[in-house]
Amino acid sequence: MNAPRHLILADGDFGPMTSKTANSIIRYQPDRVVAVLDRQLSGKTVQDVLGFGGDTPVVASMAEGLALGANSVLVGIAPQGGRLPEAWREWLREALEAGCGVVSGLHTFLADDPLLAKAAREHGGTIVDIRRPPADLPVASGLAKQVDALVVLTVGTDCNVGKMTAQLQLVDKLNASGVKTRFVPTGQTGMMIEGWGIAVDAVVADFIAGAAERITVQGAEGADVVLVEGQGSINHPGYSGVTLGLLHGSCPDAMILCHQASREYIGDYRNASWLKIPPLSQYVKWYEEFGSAVHPTKVIGIAMNTYDLGEAAARKACDDAARETGLPCTDPVRFDPAPLIGAIAKAHASKRMG
Amino acid sequence: MNAPRHLILADGDFGPMTSKTANSIIRYQPDRVVAVLDRQLSGKTVQDVLGFGGDTPVVASMAEGLALGANSVLVGIAPQGGRLPEAWREWLREALEAGCGVVSGLHTFLADDPLLAKAAREHGGTIVDIRRPPADLPVASGLAKQVDALVVLTVGTDCNVGKMTAQLQLVDKLNASGVKTRFVPTGQTGMMIEGWGIAVDAVVADFIAGAAERITVQGAEGADVVLVEGQGSINHPGYSGVTLGLLHGSCPDAMILCHQASREYIGDYRNASWLKIPPLSQYVKWYEEFGSAVHPTKVIGIAMNTYDLGEAAARKACDDAARETGLPCTDPVRFDPAPLIGAIAKAHASKRMG
Repeated sequence: MNAPRHLILADGDFGPMTSKTANSIIRYQPDRVVAVLDRQLSGKTVQDVLGFGGDTPVVASMAEGLALGANSVLVGIAPQGGRLPEAWREWLREALEAGCGVVSGLHTFLADDPLLAKAAREHGGTIVDIRRPPADLPVASGLAKQVDALVVLTVGTDCNVGKMTAQLQLVDKLNASGVKTRFVPTGQTGMMIEGWGIAVDAVVADFIAGAAERITVQGAEGADVVLVEGQGSINHPGYSGVTLGLLHGSCPDAMILCHQASREYIGDYRNASWLKIPPLSQYVKWYEEFGSAVHPTKVIGIAMNTYDLGEAAARKACDDAARETGLPCTDPVRFDPAPLIGAIAKAHASKRMG
Repeated sequence: MNAPRHLILADGDFGPMTSKTANSIIRYQPDRVVAVLDRQLSGKTVQDVLGFGGDTPVVASMAEGLALGANSVLVGIAPQGGRLPEAWREWLREALEAGCGVVSGLHTFLADDPLLAKAAREHGGTIVDIRRPPADLPVASGLAKQVDALVVLTVGTDCNVGKMTAQLQLVDKLNASGVKTRFVPTGQTGMMIEGWGIAVDAVVADFIAGAAERITVQGAEGADVVLVEGQGSINHPGYSGVTLGLLHGSCPDAMILCHQASREYIGDYRNASWLKIPPLSQYVKWYEEFGSAVHPTKVIGIAMNTYDLGEAAARKACDDAARETGLPCTDPVRFDPAPLIGAIAKAHASKRMG
């Protein structure tokens, strides 16, 4: 297959904090993106909207995207619950009938839609439902405790605070420093970028930890360090089960706590006082206590997402977090990731020494 | 439909601690059970094997069960992972071809099996896959915080320690005492007994809490107290995600901690020192801390399963647990459930007073 040239569907939701999948594909595989479809923002460039991504255009219709040479439509938003907006179905049919493939991370499997399946079959396109789980997942049994590699899991104060981005920033740096490091994708975006993994939020609930265990063990083969992509938050009222299953299935030796500095409330539930984000030190205590119920683990550093702050405020957020928790803290996207690289290298040396 | 006359399939696994679904149906709906199929134990009675259940026979073949008048086959074991043993498929076809219905709580949906679906279609039988989740589950948003009824969740030191049984013992007593109480089934066995509910371990992981929220709100309508069926354990390496999702989705005001007195290790992982069951007071602390991250909650009593102990040892186990935790403790199946009834009534009065 030729390299995909994606039109990214993000209609009505393209933006720095709303279209997480779209944005990560644009950040890490910009050469594969020909346009973004969002009627509200058409005429702008991706750079205008996100602050990165260059002059890739935002278009208003499937026809424009096809005219720009797209051979693939990537569903680039993850609405709450992950279901397909009804209006998009017609666009996807249009694309499939033009011979495009479709890549989707929605919970609703597009290949199971008779209309779309028929269009794919008749026009030779492929529908890839990234979130469709393997059929033979195990119940976890602690296998990930036994890997030789250092297992590092990102954990968060909320969904969508930058867990995956923090890790993708660290992987190359760790490899460049001689530590053989592998990223283990547990969500649709990481899987689209890396080409493997399991979306642990889409498996049958009894198999969350089993899925995490399987890909952690797989990623650890021949690696010094595996960075397991974190999901959700331990106090998120909707997604905490996925977070704990991932924590207990992957058996991390070390965790990196991720936070967005300006975030005050668990994101999907704004204005609910009971969902005010507690202090970082509370999360450190929670994750260490919850994780250690199955495998001894420590938070070794803080990854701070400061994308929406000025330089001084961003520096201050990192300094404050380091002071509060006594842990190294940086924004690995914006500033030098060395404090986190150092913390991981130290934990790796310590595990190797036994 | 006529009342079902079940042949319970529990081949190779019928016993006091192994065939949880079978045993609960026999305990709570004995009039609906005509026989149990387990080749190893055929010739015995259910009473011989379980210590309750009377002279219902254990048989060695589907044909014997059909000859006894079975019009339904109930899959009565829950193997780890819930998948269908291949050998059973032929028996189920035999039953369907004889016009029986099938009720299953396995993760593998029997109605999706072409062979079984064809047999059901051609002979008029119905296949009910209890664990098949509703299609339209929400992501939880804290709705269960707002119900007027007192929400009581059972939590456990492990799977299969008697959470559901403890609650079913309490429901009638509470209703008899004038507290309008409803049991909310979250697993296949409770659903088979009560005829409603959602198997929260079988939903897509992102919707565990959403499923728990929906049935808690539904159960609370017009009730003074809802007893939500607990699942798994917060430190179970395979199932903890389900446990936490259920805890955060149902937003219990109060919890009853369930333990089997003679159990030393998390059950599916015997002989692993890292899975020794910690003291009950540790679980009280964990569940209160984990639960209160979303909704303030307290453990108000201990339900002790002493089925395999002599009377003196059973009394001592309850006394020891009460002393360790400072909470009322009883075996509600074997002894007077009054201590737990009292604790629930007190919590209900306290919630009603605001």
